[in-house]
Amino acid sequence: MKHVVTIRKKALAASDEHAQRLRERFAESATLVANLISSPGSGKTTLLEATARRLGDRLRLAVIEGDVATENDADRIRALGVPAHQILTGGACHLDARQIDGALEAADLLPADILVIENVGNLICPTTYDLGEDFKVALLSVTEGDDKPVKYPAIFSRADVTVVTKADLLPHVPFDLDAVKSSVASLNPAGTLIVVSSTTGDGIEDWCRLLTDRLEAKRRS
Amino acid sequence: MKHVVTIRKKALAASDEHAQRLRERFAESATLVANLISSPGSGKTTLLEATARRLGDRLRLAVIEGDVATENDADRIRALGVPAHQILTGGACHLDARQIDGALEAADLLPADILVIENVGNLICPTTYDLGEDFKVALLSVTEGDDKPVKYPAIFSRADVTVVTKADLLPHVPFDLDAVKSSVASLNPAGTLIVVSSTTGDGIEDWCRLLTDRLEAKRRS
Repeated sequence: MKHVVTIRKKALAASDEHAQRLRERFAESATLVANLISSPGSGKTTLLEATARRLGDRLRLAVIEGDVATENDADRIRALGVPAHQILTGGACHLDARQIDGALEAADLLPADILVIENVGNLICPTTYDLGEDFKVALLSVTEGDDKPVKYPAIFSRADVTVVTKADLLPHVPFDLDAVKSSVASLNPAGTLIVVSSTTGDGIEDWCRLLTDRLEAKRRS
Repeated sequence: MKHVVTIRKKALAASDEHAQRLRERFAESATLVANLISSPGSGKTTLLEATARRLGDRLRLAVIEGDVATENDADRIRALGVPAHQILTGGACHLDARQIDGALEAADLLPADILVIENVGNLICPTTYDLGEDFKVALLSVTEGDDKPVKYPAIFSRADVTVVTKADLLPHVPFDLDAVKSSVASLNPAGTLIVVSSTTGDGIEDWCRLLTDRLEAKRRS
């Protein structure tokens, strides 16, 4: 197992160097980059659709989709006029920096104001992989249960932003929103938590304002 | 990367040998073993609670819980009088046969009629790991969306049984049950699909009958 650990550490170090080069490239194009991470079916693509509808007219958006199989998610984003590139990972449970580089080579995504990377649906594996993003976003749908931050602490500690999704279903499921706010605040005191429903539109403005505020801050810095 | 692949293959082969020994041990104790796999928050533990309430009086049940962090799930099962052992994987995204062996050593789980292993919440990593089980069960909650079988084909091809959970939420979410039945049947023609709601109890009898039928069949064979 020692060999595996050593090789894994080397692979992660190479990946981090790659991520640093991506970060420089995104700085040159003044592109804000968010890395979306959640369980399968938490509503990442649906949130991106709502984001494209609200911001697509005034900002240049671009999306990189990561999935084990199918081009479905990229097709959904392209249908809204936003350029999207689909990465198919085969069996792999996360994206890495090299794949992001490949996506930028393969598709005309830059220059863009905001690039969103939708990671593979997985609450564990993507956590430690730096994709050159400005910040990670963890999504948690109210149907998944309010125990998820304490059961998957790594991602909720590392994500600058937690988005609680599917808030329209709150009347139908047992989900203690205050408990989630409290556990996320405890894991990540500097983090931001937003509650949205892509179905009713509630909270989408807050999410989009967070993106535009961060874009402005990046361009001022 | 060649080294990583070789080491991974060797590790998988060792794990498969380990799984084979577990399978022999489960045959000796005439224990039916199911390996539950799903996204975080699909309702694995809640289904086990409903199972314990229905079968706990007449069968010896036992549970092994796999989680990245917290003893919460094992506590929920023990509260119903069913012996449960919690495996904490740290950062790892799946259980392996060695850990199951360790759980059997650490806790008085056998002899049992039915042992259910609740894998780490993850729709990708646990797919290829043999835990000595009789069959894998994939859970999919209706809130995750009807596209999940085609987006995560490996697990839905390999799981003998697919359990569609949270059926009580069907009126509130866009989920085409017929499309899911069709895609699972296409990925896994010999598979069985059951629709349940652990909240209303719908379908729980079908699920429990599947377990008891398979237990009888194993003991006859």
